[in-house]
Amino acid sequence: MIGRSGIAVRNVVRADPASVVELQKYGVATIHEAMGRIGLLAPYIRPIYPGAKVCGTAVTIFAHPGDNWMLHVAAEMLRPGDVAVLGTSSDSTDGMFGDLLATSFRARGALGLVIDAGCRDAGELREMGFPVWSKSVHAKGTVKATVGSVNTPIICAGALVHPGDVVVADDDGVVIVPKATAPRVAAAAGQREAKETATRRRLAAGELGLDVYGMREPLAKAGLEYFADEAALDPESRR
Amino acid sequence: MIGRSGIAVRNVVRADPASVVELQKYGVATIHEAMGRIGLLAPYIRPIYPGAKVCGTAVTIFAHPGDNWMLHVAAEMLRPGDVAVLGTSSDSTDGMFGDLLATSFRARGALGLVIDAGCRDAGELREMGFPVWSKSVHAKGTVKATVGSVNTPIICAGALVHPGDVVVADDDGVVIVPKATAPRVAAAAGQREAKETATRRRLAAGELGLDVYGMREPLAKAGLEYFADEAALDPESRR
Amino acid sequence: MIGRSGIAVRNVVRADPASVVELQKYGVATIHEAMGRIGLLAPYIRPIYPGAKVCGTAVTIFAHPGDNWMLHVAAEMLRPGDVAVLGTSSDSTDGMFGDLLATSFRARGALGLVIDAGCRDAGELREMGFPVWSKSVHAKGTVKATVGSVNTPIICAGALVHPGDVVVADDDGVVIVPKATAPRVAAAAGQREAKETATRRRLAAGELGLDVYGMREPLAKAGLEYFADEAALDPESRR
Amino acid sequence: MIGRSGIAVRNVVRADPASVVELQKYGVATIHEAMGRIGLLAPYIRPIYPGAKVCGTAVTIFAHPGDNWMLHVAAEMLRPGDVAVLGTSSDSTDGMFGDLLATSFRARGALGLVIDAGCRDAGELREMGFPVWSKSVHAKGTVKATVGSVNTPIICAGALVHPGDVVVADDDGVVIVPKATAPRVAAAAGQREAKETATRRRLAAGELGLDVYGMREPLAKAGLEYFADEAALDPESRR
Amino acid sequence: MIGRSGIAVRNVVRADPASVVELQKYGVATIHEAMGRIGLLAPYIRPIYPGAKVCGTAVTIFAHPGDNWMLHVAAEMLRPGDVAVLGTSSDSTDGMFGDLLATSFRARGALGLVIDAGCRDAGELREMGFPVWSKSVHAKGTVKATVGSVNTPIICAGALVHPGDVVVADDDGVVIVPKATAPRVAAAAGQREAKETATRRRLAAGELGLDVYGMREPLAKAGLEYFADEAALDPESRR
Amino acid sequence: MIGRSGIAVRNVVRADPASVVELQKYGVATIHEAMGRIGLLAPYIRPIYPGAKVCGTAVTIFAHPGDNWMLHVAAEMLRPGDVAVLGTSSDSTDGMFGDLLATSFRARGALGLVIDAGCRDAGELREMGFPVWSKSVHAKGTVKATVGSVNTPIICAGALVHPGDVVVADDDGVVIVPKATAPRVAAAAGQREAKETATRRRLAAGELGLDVYGMREPLAKAGLEYFADEAALDPESRR
Repeated sequence: MIGRSGIAVRNVVRADPASVVELQKYGVATIHEAMGRIGLLAPYIRPIYPGAKVCGTAVTIFAHPGDNWMLHVAAEMLRPGDVAVLGTSSDSTDGMFGDLLATSFRARGALGLVIDAGCRDAGELREMGFPVWSKSVHAKGTVKATVGSVNTPIICAGALVHPGDVVVADDDGVVIVPKATAPRVAAAAGQREAKETATRRRLAAGELGLDVYGMREPLAKAGLEYFADEAALDPESRR
Repeated sequence: MIGRSGIAVRNVVRADPASVVELQKYGVATIHEAMGRIGLLAPYIRPIYPGAKVCGTAVTIFAHPGDNWMLHVAAEMLRPGDVAVLGTSSDSTDGMFGDLLATSFRARGALGLVIDAGCRDAGELREMGFPVWSKSVHAKGTVKATVGSVNTPIICAGALVHPGDVVVADDDGVVIVPKATAPRVAAAAGQREAKETATRRRLAAGELGLDVYGMREPLAKAGLEYFADEAALDPESRR
Repeated sequence: MIGRSGIAVRNVVRADPASVVELQKYGVATIHEAMGRIGLLAPYIRPIYPGAKVCGTAVTIFAHPGDNWMLHVAAEMLRPGDVAVLGTSSDSTDGMFGDLLATSFRARGALGLVIDAGCRDAGELREMGFPVWSKSVHAKGTVKATVGSVNTPIICAGALVHPGDVVVADDDGVVIVPKATAPRVAAAAGQREAKETATRRRLAAGELGLDVYGMREPLAKAGLEYFADEAALDPESRR
Repeated sequence: MIGRSGIAVRNVVRADPASVVELQKYGVATIHEAMGRIGLLAPYIRPIYPGAKVCGTAVTIFAHPGDNWMLHVAAEMLRPGDVAVLGTSSDSTDGMFGDLLATSFRARGALGLVIDAGCRDAGELREMGFPVWSKSVHAKGTVKATVGSVNTPIICAGALVHPGDVVVADDDGVVIVPKATAPRVAAAAGQREAKETATRRRLAAGELGLDVYGMREPLAKAGLEYFADEAALDPESRR
Repeated sequence: MIGRSGIAVRNVVRADPASVVELQKYGVATIHEAMGRIGLLAPYIRPIYPGAKVCGTAVTIFAHPGDNWMLHVAAEMLRPGDVAVLGTSSDSTDGMFGDLLATSFRARGALGLVIDAGCRDAGELREMGFPVWSKSVHAKGTVKATVGSVNTPIICAGALVHPGDVVVADDDGVVIVPKATAPRVAAAAGQREAKETATRRRLAAGELGLDVYGMREPLAKAGLEYFADEAALDPESRR
Repeated sequence: MIGRSGIAVRNVVRADPASVVELQKYGVATIHEAMGRIGLLAPYIRPIYPGAKVCGTAVTIFAHPGDNWMLHVAAEMLRPGDVAVLGTSSDSTDGMFGDLLATSFRARGALGLVIDAGCRDAGELREMGFPVWSKSVHAKGTVKATVGSVNTPIICAGALVHPGDVVVADDDGVVIVPKATAPRVAAAAGQREAKETATRRRLAAGELGLDVYGMREPLAKAGLEYFADEAALDPESRR
C-alpha cells in the first residue's frame, strides 16, 4: 500500500539493462514525449546544479518529513546503476541528504538522488559531481526516529514510482519509465529523436514549422485569421 | 481586445532602431528607473541560465496553456532583432518551447524569448546560447489544438506588451519600453548611467551615500535618532 | 522592541574575533548541527550566485518594503568583517540592493548581505564577487521615504538576529550564531567536523551507515521488517 | 502609461448604464464565457466573505505597496454604482483598506472594492456588507507617503482595467468588461444564460451531456475507446 | 498506465457497500489514522464551502488542464453513491466544473467531486448543496478538445486513486481508502473512535494527556527538563 | 535560545490582567497601529472559521514538524485566559492539533490556539467554538517522538513571542503585545479607537478623507496633478 511504513525489500526486479543503456541517450523531454506525454515529476523538482544528467534504475524510499533514517537503510539496497528516489508522508523542505550519504551512495555505485524534500551540502555535492534533484536546498538537519519503507511503490512529486523503474533526470526535470514499458519507450524515443534531427536541419535552414508540419490548413480551420497590419483590425481588438 | 484569440498580424510598427541600439547599452534596472520605475514583468520570470542579455522588439504571442501552436505562427512574423513575448490565457508551467523552436526562431533572426509559462530543453538552449526568460523549466509537452493570437496586445507576467515595444532582459528580469517612449527612455537611461558612474566612483573611494545624496537632514526630519551604543537605548527597544 | 523604527545604534558588541575565524572553517549545515539544529533562516533565502561563502558579524537593518533608505544609514555602521542583515516590516520582493550600494559596502569592508527581500544588478554583483543571499532577484526600484532602524534586534526570514551575532552563509543558506554562544558553537563544530571526516572515510570505503552508526538494532525495534523480494509481501503492500 | 504615478483624472467615460443593469443579472463565469473566455483576474483574488456580488463601473487606482494614500484620492472620484479597482507597482499583502475607507466609499455610493493587495477589518466589512475582493486579509497598516494615480489604465491581478469599464465580481472571482464591448457582452451573456437554462433542465432530467451536446462522435474521432471493464484493458494500463 | 489517455472503462469493481456505510460514520482524520496515517490528498485541496461531508466510491477521471471533456464522459459512468475524482496531466487552476455538470452529476446519483484543479459557480454549488473539494475557485472556462481517461488509476493531489476506492471528504480534506482494505479500515476506525470517545471524556474532566497517555516517563527519557520559572534557566536560553 | 529543545518552564510572568481586559476591546488592526505598526504574525496565519476573536496571555510551544508531543506538555501549563502559541523548527502543514487536545485545552481554561503549522478536526472545533489560527487545515496526523520546549521565547510566523505576552487574534490575523508594553499599548489603542469613531462619523456623513485628514496640500507637494478628464492627458499616459 502506497505510504505504508516498516517494509524493506532487499531484491527488486530492475528494468532490463539494454533499455537503460538505450534510454541514457535521450533527454527527459524526448522520453516523456515518447511515452505519450506522461511520467514526469512536478516542476518544483530541480537539479541542485546545472548540466547534470542520470539514467538508472529506481531504489524507492518512503520517509517521514525531517527524518532521514530510511536513506541509510536504502544505501544497503543500492547497486551500481541505481538512482535513489524518495517520497515523503507530508510536505518538507528539510535537508535530508548531504555529502556523507552521497559518499556512501557513490561507494555503492548509485548515480544520483531524486528527493521530494530538501538537500544540503549543495556545494560539496557539486564538487563531488553527485547530482541531486530536489524540492529545495536547505541546511536543516533531520532526526533518525521513525521508520518508513524501502523498495515499495511510492509517490514522488506527483508521480508513481515502482522499485526498478527507469529514472531519467536532466536540466528539464525527472521522468519515470515503468520497467515493463522501458523497451518500447526506448524504441519510440529513438524514432522521435531521428525525426527531430531531420526537422532541426530544415528549421535551421530557415524553413518554417508551419510548412514542415503542414499547419497552415488546420490553423485556418481552427479559425486563425491573418491581417496585414494593425490598421486592418477592428478597434476593439487594438486595446 | 486583450486575450482575444484567432488574430495574426503580419506587419507591426516596431520601435525605432536607433532607440533599440541605445537601450541595448543599459541594464533592466537602469531602464526601469529611467522610465519612472515602471514597466517590469513580475519577479517569477527568470532567465534559464545566468549572464544572458537581450534587447529587441517584441513579437507578441497569446497562447492557451499546454498549447504551443501559436509559437509556430509567430516564427513567420519574427525578423532579425525581434524578441518573442508570450502571455497565456491561464496559469501554466508546461514546457511550451524547446530547442526545435529555438532553432527556427534563431534562423529567423530572433534574439530570445520571454514566456509566462515553462520552457524545456534548458541544457540544449544554454549550449546554443538562445536565451529564454520563463516561469519554470519543465519537460511537460504541449498540444497544437487551439488558436491564440500573434501581434496583438498581451499581458505577460503582469505587464502590458504591445507588438513592436522594446523588450530588455537580463539577470534582473525583463522590462518593456513602449515604442512611443523608447527615444525618451533611452536618453533618460543614458543620463542616469552617467550620474551613477560618477556616484560609483565616490562610493568606491569610501564616501558614504548619506553624504553623496545629502540624506542626513531628511533622515533626522523623518525621525531617525542616533545612539552611541545599545546601553543608550531604553529597555523596551532592546528586546 | 522588534520592529521599532527610528533607531540607529553606532557601536555594537560584536562576537569575539577568534570565534569568527574559527567558524569560518565550517559550512552552514555543520554549524547548524553544532548549535543543536537551530539558527537557520528560512529556505527561501538563496545565494544570487553559486559557490559564495561568508562568515562575519551582523550589522542589522530593519526596513520597510520598497524603501532602501536604511541601507545607506547602515553603510556608515559597517566595519571590516561585517555582514549586513536586513529584515522588513512586511513581505517584499523589490530589488532594495544593487551595485552602487555594494560598491559602498565593499569600501567599508563588508563581506556580503543577507536580505529578506529582493536584490538587483545580480550580474554586476556576480562580477564584483559581492555575495548576496536574498528572497528574490528583481529589478524593481525603491524609494527613500520611511525610516527603519539599524543595529536593533530584527527577525530575518524567521530567525532572530542581534547586532554583532555571527552570520555564516553558503550554498546551503544562512545560519545565525548568537555572539554569546559563538565560542561554544565553534568548538562543537570542530568536533563534529572531525567526527564526520572519520565517518566519510569509512563510508567511502564501502561501509554502510547502518553499521557505522549502529542502526540495525534500533531499526528492528522501531518495527522495520526486511523481505527478500516483492513476492514476500502481502498483496495489500504491492499496490 | 501603465504604471505612471502622479495623475488623478476627475471625470471618466463610464460604461452605459443599461449594459451595467443587464450585466448585473449574470455571474462572473457566464460573462467571461460570453466575452470569448477572457477578462478574468487571476485566481488568487478572492472575496473576503462568501455570497457577495457586485456589478459596477471601475474607478481605477494605481498605488505603491504599503501606501494607501491614493484610496483617499479615489474616494472623491467615486460615484454611485462605481467599484474601486486597485493595482500596485509591486507585490504586497498589506491591509491597505479597512472599515474607515469602506465607510467613506459607501457614503460616496461605491458598491465594493477589488484590490491586488491586502484588506483588513474583515469582520467589520462583513458586518457592514461592504464586499472586497483581495489577495489577502492582513492587519498590516500602511503609510501615506508616495503618490500613485487615479483613473488611469491599470493592471490588476493580470488584467488590464480602464476607468469606466464594467467590473463584475462574485464567489468565482472578478471579470472586467471593457466599456466599449459592454452592450455586446450583455447580449451574449443573456443568450448564453437562456441556453444554459434549457440545458440545465435536460441534465436535471437525467439526460447526459454526451447526448445533449452531441459529443459521442467527436470523442470517438479524438481516440477515446470504451472498455466493458478493467479486465478488458491490457496489463500496462492497469498500473 | 498512470496518465494514459483515451481509455473509458464502463464497469468497475466498487468497494463493498457495507464498508462504505461504516466509513461514512467517521471523519477524514480518524480514517487516515486508522489506515496507519496514510491515504490523504495534499492540503491544498479544500472544500468550496464549510461543513460538507461525503463518503462514496470513486469514479476516476484523468483530464488535461483547461479541458473538461472527460467530466462529461464520466457522467455516464456515475452511479448512486459515487464520488468523482479528477487528476490532471499538469497543474491547472481553471474552473473545469460548474453548476451544469453538478446538475448532471446529481441526476446520476453522484455525491460530490474531488478535483485537482479549479471549480466555478461556487455560489450556485453551495446553494444546491453539491460539495466540491478543489485546488481553487476560478471562473476560467475550459475547452473540450483533448481526450483523457475515465476509470483508470490516477494520481490526484499526490495520492493514488483506483476506480472503486472509497473517497471520504470533509472539512479536513480528503482521504482515499483502497477498496481491498475498506473493511479492515472501517473496523479500525470504529475502534479508534471508541477509544477517543473515552479519552475525550477524561480530558474534558480536566485530566491531562500526560497522564491519560502515560507520557511523563518517555518525555523525561527523551530529555525534557522542567524548570520552576524563567529565572531557573541559564542566560543563553532566555534570549 | 530561540529554537532550543528540552525545556519546560512551569511558571511564567504574564501580562497584567487589567491590560488584557482593556486590549480585549480592540481589534488586531487597531492594536497593531497603536504599537507603531508592528507585532503582527505573517498573513498566512488564518482563522479556521470566521468571526472568532481571542485576547489572552501566551503559553509558548516550540515543536518539531509532524510531532505534537509538546502540545500535551503545554496543556499542564495552561491557565484560564491563556492562548497557546506554537512555532516549529521547520515548515509543516500537518494537522498537529485536533478536537481531543482542544477538549483538554478548554478544560484548562485556554481560550484558543495560534499554530504555525496545520490543524485538523476543523468542523468539530467550529462546533465547539474553540478558535484556532493556523497555516493550514489538514487531517495529517503526527507522532510523539521528539521533545521541543514550552514557555521559552519562540518565533511564530515571523514574530517573536515570549511566554506571558498578550496575544490578540481575530479575522484580520494575530498580533503579539510584549507584556512590558501592554499597558501603554492598551492606552494608545483606546485613544486611537476614540479618534477613529469620530472620523468614522464624519466619513459616513460624506466628508472626504482628503479634507478630514488635510491631505490636499501634501498630495500636491508630492506631485499629484488633477485633470478634468482623459482628453486632458498626454497620449503617452492613455495607454
